[in-house]
Amino acid sequence: MLAAEFLDRLQRIVGTENLLTDPVDCYAYAYDNSRKIFPPEAVAFALDTGQVRDIILLCNQYHVPVTPRGRGTGTSGGSVPEQGGLALSLERMRKILHIDPANRVIVAEPGVLNQEIQDAVRLHGFFWPPDPSSSAYCSIGGNLATCAGGPHAVKYGVTRDHVLGLTAVTGAGEIIKTGCYTTKGVVGYDLTRLVIGSEGTLAVVTEATLKLTPLPQAVGGITAHYADIASCARAISAIMAQPHIPSALEFIDGAALDLIRGRHPDLLPENSRAMLMIEVDGGEAEIADSARAIRQACKNPGLITAEATADPATLWAMRKALSPLLRDIAPKKINEDIVVPVSRLPELLQGLEDLSGKYRIANVNFGHAGNGNIHVNLLVNPDIADEMQRAEACLDEVFDLVLKLDGTLSGEHGVGREKRAYVSREIDAPTLELMKQIKRVFDPNQILNPGKLFP
Amino acid sequence: MLAAEFLDRLQRIVGTENLLTDPVDCYAYAYDNSRKIFPPEAVAFALDTGQVRDIILLCNQYHVPVTPRGRGTGTSGGSVPEQGGLALSLERMRKILHIDPANRVIVAEPGVLNQEIQDAVRLHGFFWPPDPSSSAYCSIGGNLATCAGGPHAVKYGVTRDHVLGLTAVTGAGEIIKTGCYTTKGVVGYDLTRLVIGSEGTLAVVTEATLKLTPLPQAVGGITAHYADIASCARAISAIMAQPHIPSALEFIDGAALDLIRGRHPDLLPENSRAMLMIEVDGGEAEIADSARAIRQACKNPGLITAEATADPATLWAMRKALSPLLRDIAPKKINEDIVVPVSRLPELLQGLEDLSGKYRIANVNFGHAGNGNIHVNLLVNPDIADEMQRAEACLDEVFDLVLKLDGTLSGEHGVGREKRAYVSREIDAPTLELMKQIKRVFDPNQILNPGKLFP
Repeated sequence: MLAAEFLDRLQRIVGTENLLTDPVDCYAYAYDNSRKIFPPEAVAFALDTGQVRDIILLCNQYHVPVTPRGRGTGTSGGSVPEQGGLALSLERMRKILHIDPANRVIVAEPGVLNQEIQDAVRLHGFFWPPDPSSSAYCSIGGNLATCAGGPHAVKYGVTRDHVLGLTAVTGAGEIIKTGCYTTKGVVGYDLTRLVIGSEGTLAVVTEATLKLTPLPQAVGGITAHYADIASCARAISAIMAQPHIPSALEFIDGAALDLIRGRHPDLLPENSRAMLMIEVDGGEAEIADSARAIRQACKNPGLITAEATADPATLWAMRKALSPLLRDIAPKKINEDIVVPVSRLPELLQGLEDLSGKYRIANVNFGHAGNGNIHVNLLVNPDIADEMQRAEACLDEVFDLVLKLDGTLSGEHGVGREKRAYVSREIDAPTLELMKQIKRVFDPNQILNPGKLFP
Repeated sequence: MLAAEFLDRLQRIVGTENLLTDPVDCYAYAYDNSRKIFPPEAVAFALDTGQVRDIILLCNQYHVPVTPRGRGTGTSGGSVPEQGGLALSLERMRKILHIDPANRVIVAEPGVLNQEIQDAVRLHGFFWPPDPSSSAYCSIGGNLATCAGGPHAVKYGVTRDHVLGLTAVTGAGEIIKTGCYTTKGVVGYDLTRLVIGSEGTLAVVTEATLKLTPLPQAVGGITAHYADIASCARAISAIMAQPHIPSALEFIDGAALDLIRGRHPDLLPENSRAMLMIEVDGGEAEIADSARAIRQACKNPGLITAEATADPATLWAMRKALSPLLRDIAPKKINEDIVVPVSRLPELLQGLEDLSGKYRIANVNFGHAGNGNIHVNLLVNPDIADEMQRAEACLDEVFDLVLKLDGTLSGEHGVGREKRAYVSREIDAPTLELMKQIKRVFDPNQILNPGKLFP
C-alpha cells in the first residue's frame, strides 16, 4: 500500500487531474499485449521533464517501484507494473517540440504516437523508419524503450539507427542529455543507444531528437507464392544475398495463409503453402532494376508465382491483421520474435515444423524474413494443463534451436518479463553481470521498472 | 618504473618476441597524429582474447596503466600512453576469422586494417562503410574505438551503424560478448555501441562482427566551384534539404584550394574561393536523377560551375592529401573536427572567418559538409608564444560558436587528450558524472587508458 503522505506529495507534483488511485481506474494500466495483469497502486501522468524527475525522486525517497509506460502495446510485459507501486504514464507528454526539415530532424515528447510523427513529417517529404504493426497507437517513447523495428527495418534499420539524442531522467532522478543534434558526434559515451532498448529500466525518456529519412519517390511490390516452406526459405536467403535490398521482405507460412483464407477466400492461390510480400522503393528505374533482380532470386523449383502485387493496400492490411487474427483460432498464443541469420532460415523453419510435430503444438509463423526475424506463435489452450506443459517444452527447444543457429531470442519485442527466464542462455554471465552493474549506476535503489529484463 | 616481476609475468603471457622494453623500441609507441609524445615503459603485443585478458588482469594486480593501441593514426591522442605504463598493441591480432557473404557479415580481429577489410569483401560485392582518410593504414580496432567516419558517412553512417557485435575485455579483465550475429537484436543493453567510440577507456575489443553493405552499381561525381564561401555554404544546405542524399559531399575552402593550387597549378578555376566535391552512387538511372537534383540545388548567384567531375581519382587523392599538405605551410596545425547542423554552416563559416581576423590566426577549413562536419585547422608557429596564446583564445571561441549553433566538438576524431578540457562545455555535469560511473563499472581500478576522454 502506498503511504498517504507519498500520494499527497505525488498529487502536489502532477495535480489531481493527473493522478489515478481508484483501483478501477488503475486497472487500465495493469496490462499490455502480453495479457498479464499486474495493477499499479497509482497512475501518475507526467507533463514535463521536471515532473518526471520529481516523481522519480519521490519514488526513491519512499522506495516505491515505478514502471514507465507509453501506450501499453508491447508484447513482452515491459510496461506492466509487476511489483505494484506507481505506473508512470508518459501518454500526456504529447508535444511535437519542433520540426526542422533543413536538418532532417524532429524533436518530440515521448507520448507522441508513431503515426503522428509520420503525419507531421510527411508534409516535408520525410518519414521516421521504425514502423511496428501498432504504429497507429504506439508512442515513440515505447518505440525507444524497446528499440522497435517493423517490416521496413530490412532496408532502413531499427529505432537505434534513427535517433540523434535524448533527454531522460535516470532511476536516480538525474536529468541527462545524451547524443547531439547533428548526424555525427563522438563526444563522450553513447548513452543514447544504451537507453534505447533498455525497456525503461535505466531512464525515462522525456524528449527525443529523431533523425528523418526522405520518403522514397515510389514503391513497388512483388508477391511470391511457394508450394512448400523450404523453397520459400531458400528464396529469402537468395534475395538477401543479392545486392538489391528490398524495403520489406515479409514471410507468411501456410498456417497463417489459412487464417487469411478464412477472411479473404479468393485472395491467395489454393496450393500456396508459403508466401513472400516483397516491397522495393526508390526512383522508378531503381525499382524496376531491383524488382527484376529480386524476381530472379525468387525462382526455384518450389515457386508457384512471383508477380507484381495487385493490391498492396489490402495485402498490407491483411499482414497487419495477422497478429490479432490469431486470437480468433486459439484461446492463447505464445508469441515470440526470434531472429536467425537469413542463411539459416531453412534450418529454422524446418526445425519449427519438427518441434510442432514432436510436441503436438500448432504453430503459425510469419514476420520480417529479410532480417531473419520470425514471429513464432504457439497456439495453446491455457485450460489444458498438459498442452501448456508441452508448449513450454517446445518453446524451450525453439530457443535452443535459435541460439544454435547463431540467432537471438528477440528482434524487436524485447525481454520485459516474458523472456527473462531465457536471457542467460543468450548472454553469458560476465556480460549480464556488467549490465546489472550499469543498471545500478542509473538506478541505485532499483526502483525503475524493477525485475524486468534480467533473469 | 615497471617492476621486474611484472615484466617477467608479462613476458610469460606474450613471449619474448611480443614484448618491447628498450626505450628506443618503446618510443615508436609514444605518439599518434596529435604529435604529442608520451613513451610507454613497455609494449606488449597480444595475439588473442585470452592474452588480452591476462595482460589486463596483470595490470590490475600491479596497478599499471594500460593504453590500448591500433595503428596510432588518431589525431586526438587517444592511444598515447600519457601516464606511461604499458602500451597494449593489437596490431598483431590480424586474422579475418570468417567472411559470410550470404549474411553480409565479416568477423575480424582488431589489428586488421580497414583497407584489408575492404579488399576481402569487395570480391563478394560488399564494402564496409567507415572510410577515414587513413583507411590504408588504420586498424578496425581504432575505427571502433573512435567510431570513425569519413566522407561516405553522409549517406552510409559511421562505425556504430555497421557493427553487429563485439568480443571485448573490460578494464576489470572480464571477457564480454556484446550484440549478436543478426541484423536485429534487442536482448539486453546495447553494450556494442557503448564500447564503440569509448576510445579504449572501457574495454579492449578483441573480435568484431561487422555488417557489410552492397557495393553501389555505379558512382558519379559533380564538382562545384563558388566565388565566395557564403554561397557555397548555402548550397550545402540546399543539397541536404532535397531528398537525393549524396554519397559524399566534401567542402574545401579558399585557403585549402590555394594549397592544392601549389601542387596542381591548372586543376582549379582561378576565381574559385570554395569548392564542393559531390559523389552520388547507385544504379545508372538513380545517379542521373540524383545528379540532376543536386546540380539544381548547387545553383545560386555565387556558383561559378557545377559539372561532372572529370577526373575523380585525382580529385580524391588531392582531398586526401590536404591534411598532410598543411604541414608544409605551417610548423603546427591545431586540427579540429567540429560539427554543426547543415543549415547552420553559413553562420559557422562566417564565424570562423571573423575569428581568424579577430585573432590574426590563419585557418584552413575543409571536410564532410553533408554531415556539417568541418575540419578546422588553425595554423600556428609554436615558437611564437603570443601566436599560440591567440590561437588558444581563438579555439575557445570556435568551440563556443559551435555549441551556440547546436553543434558538437567532435564528429569523428574523438576527445582523447586533446579535447578533454572542452568536454564539460558540451556535456552537462550529471551526464558526465553518469559516464564516469559507467567507466568505473568497466574499469574499477582506472587502469584502462586512464585520464582520457574526461575533463
